[in-house]
Amino acid sequence: MDKLQLADIKAAQQRICGHVHKTPVLSSSFLDKRLGHRFLFKAENLQKVGAFKARGAFNTLAWLKEQGQLPKRVVAYSSGNHAQSVAWACAQFNVQATILMPKGVSEVKAQATAGYGAEVVICADRMSAEARSAELAKQGAYLIPPYDHDQVICGQGTVTLEALSQVDAVDAIFTPCGGGGFLSGTTIAAKGINSAIKVFGAEPINANDAAQSLRSGNIVKLPASPDTIADGVKTLAVSERTFSYLKAADGILEIDEHAIIYWTQWLTHLLKVTIEPTAALSMAAACQWLTSQSSAKTVLLMLSGGNMDLATRHQIWQQDCLDDLPTL
Amino acid sequence: MDKLQLADIKAAQQRICGHVHKTPVLSSSFLDKRLGHRFLFKAENLQKVGAFKARGAFNTLAWLKEQGQLPKRVVAYSSGNHAQSVAWACAQFNVQATILMPKGVSEVKAQATAGYGAEVVICADRMSAEARSAELAKQGAYLIPPYDHDQVICGQGTVTLEALSQVDAVDAIFTPCGGGGFLSGTTIAAKGINSAIKVFGAEPINANDAAQSLRSGNIVKLPASPDTIADGVKTLAVSERTFSYLKAADGILEIDEHAIIYWTQWLTHLLKVTIEPTAALSMAAACQWLTSQSSAKTVLLMLSGGNMDLATRHQIWQQDCLDDLPTL
Repeated sequence: MDKLQLADIKAAQQRICGHVHKTPVLSSSFLDKRLGHRFLFKAENLQKVGAFKARGAFNTLAWLKEQGQLPKRVVAYSSGNHAQSVAWACAQFNVQATILMPKGVSEVKAQATAGYGAEVVICADRMSAEARSAELAKQGAYLIPPYDHDQVICGQGTVTLEALSQVDAVDAIFTPCGGGGFLSGTTIAAKGINSAIKVFGAEPINANDAAQSLRSGNIVKLPASPDTIADGVKTLAVSERTFSYLKAADGILEIDEHAIIYWTQWLTHLLKVTIEPTAALSMAAACQWLTSQSSAKTVLLMLSGGNMDLATRHQIWQQDCLDDLPTL
Repeated sequence: MDKLQLADIKAAQQRICGHVHKTPVLSSSFLDKRLGHRFLFKAENLQKVGAFKARGAFNTLAWLKEQGQLPKRVVAYSSGNHAQSVAWACAQFNVQATILMPKGVSEVKAQATAGYGAEVVICADRMSAEARSAELAKQGAYLIPPYDHDQVICGQGTVTLEALSQVDAVDAIFTPCGGGGFLSGTTIAAKGINSAIKVFGAEPINANDAAQSLRSGNIVKLPASPDTIADGVKTLAVSERTFSYLKAADGILEIDEHAIIYWTQWLTHLLKVTIEPTAALSMAAACQWLTSQSSAKTVLLMLSGGNMDLATRHQIWQQDCLDDLPTL
């Protein structure tokens, strides 16, 4: 397959323009003053369905339509933002959606997905979900994967395109990394616009398969679902496709669980928006990088989403981190 | 004194323009579909200092400057958003601020206020705060009260002016009511623009002094600090000044504590922004009013602020209201 270019992301932006929100870039003068750098937060938590993933899902369907290949039915397997994004995007194109969700998914998430008109099927495990997918595919359904798809990657890349049009020059961009779709799109877009912009991924230490993969030069797969509060990046491994783009990034920073909770609290407090813990990875990574910088930098941080169940919310707020002022 | 008019609020808007945020109007297609009305949320929680009160404080100082009466020092008494707003506004005008805060105020709030460069003085009680105020006033300090001031009211009224320029026709506006400054400004602005727009205040049942006052025709003062989670509207009584404007509103709706918690959870969940419980009063009041309406309405809801301490956050989220879908 041909490698994706900036032009492909620009094409995605044309497709999704007017259908997804142009999200704001937030900032905090308190943070800038206190830490001595300029922090710009791209608020994709305020995106349709509460996450950047609406972009990739919509772009994939718009691209299929462009090719004259809009399917009658789409299938996706996810317990999280991808589920809601595909359900929402299908509703925009009047395409039927079947969303396979794992047993134990919260009622709120299942309801939100069904609320977009999707058929929600609860599966016992990933194997039975894959079997069900294959079955539906045989009947002509189109599977939209969460990251291993060119048009999904291009959709996610539009966040960077949009953000860089909203702000002045930035030195570095920080993006959470799960399956690598968001980070791939970010890297293609940012380096395509200006190769001097640094691009970093952010992973929980407890789910550092992408960091391990880049270190070893081969895709490393986690042995089991990792123990992290950042439920958006629990993917076991990146794909060959995303791995090839991740190699062009400037590195992956590994974040401990306390830092995720700490920045979830502080960004919620300062920016007055709801962010899911995965979104806080960007800020924690930026702080890690900035400790090694000798001059003031401008950094762009991707707030990936704002969806969170009650148990996660309780876990985030069980102790008070706001007594402990930010420092580098 | 002359009664305030729409022109006074327009003058305030000129003064504060470019110095405070133009906040977005948020909506939720889920809510609109489910409840059968159009809900527009004016997100003043994303305002400077996280509350609409930045407008009144800034306008008062800008007006003083216009009169050639910018003081050397400003004093204010508050544990909440008024404290931070005055501290922030003074910093913009290079005016020294002394903020008197009651004993027991949270460290986060005291720090945030001090962070704007204000001198924070912790007072044992309201009486000692008033004594200290009087002392500073004798030395030339200017007291900015939280609501009983024409220019504070005009500043708060700019929220309505701005919101009505961002949306199509609305049928009714809902605003939390504590001391009545925000509701006064809302009423003057909305009725001035179009007298057909209904304007309602929203008060906790447990702190319903304004509702009682309007019923009896005289200002009723609560005997003691009321027990409500909506800490932005704990004021014991409205003032003669605000009472005179409240009479022109279409009523005050009284909200129970469960509804405040319920809508704080749901609006946080759907809009992905942090709102303080006081902000949820608007939505609860709108739902109460809409049950009596026979046709679909468009309502504008003032999200007053997004500041909340950890104890309040825990209280809001201790039980899950998201299992219980909204209905009218």
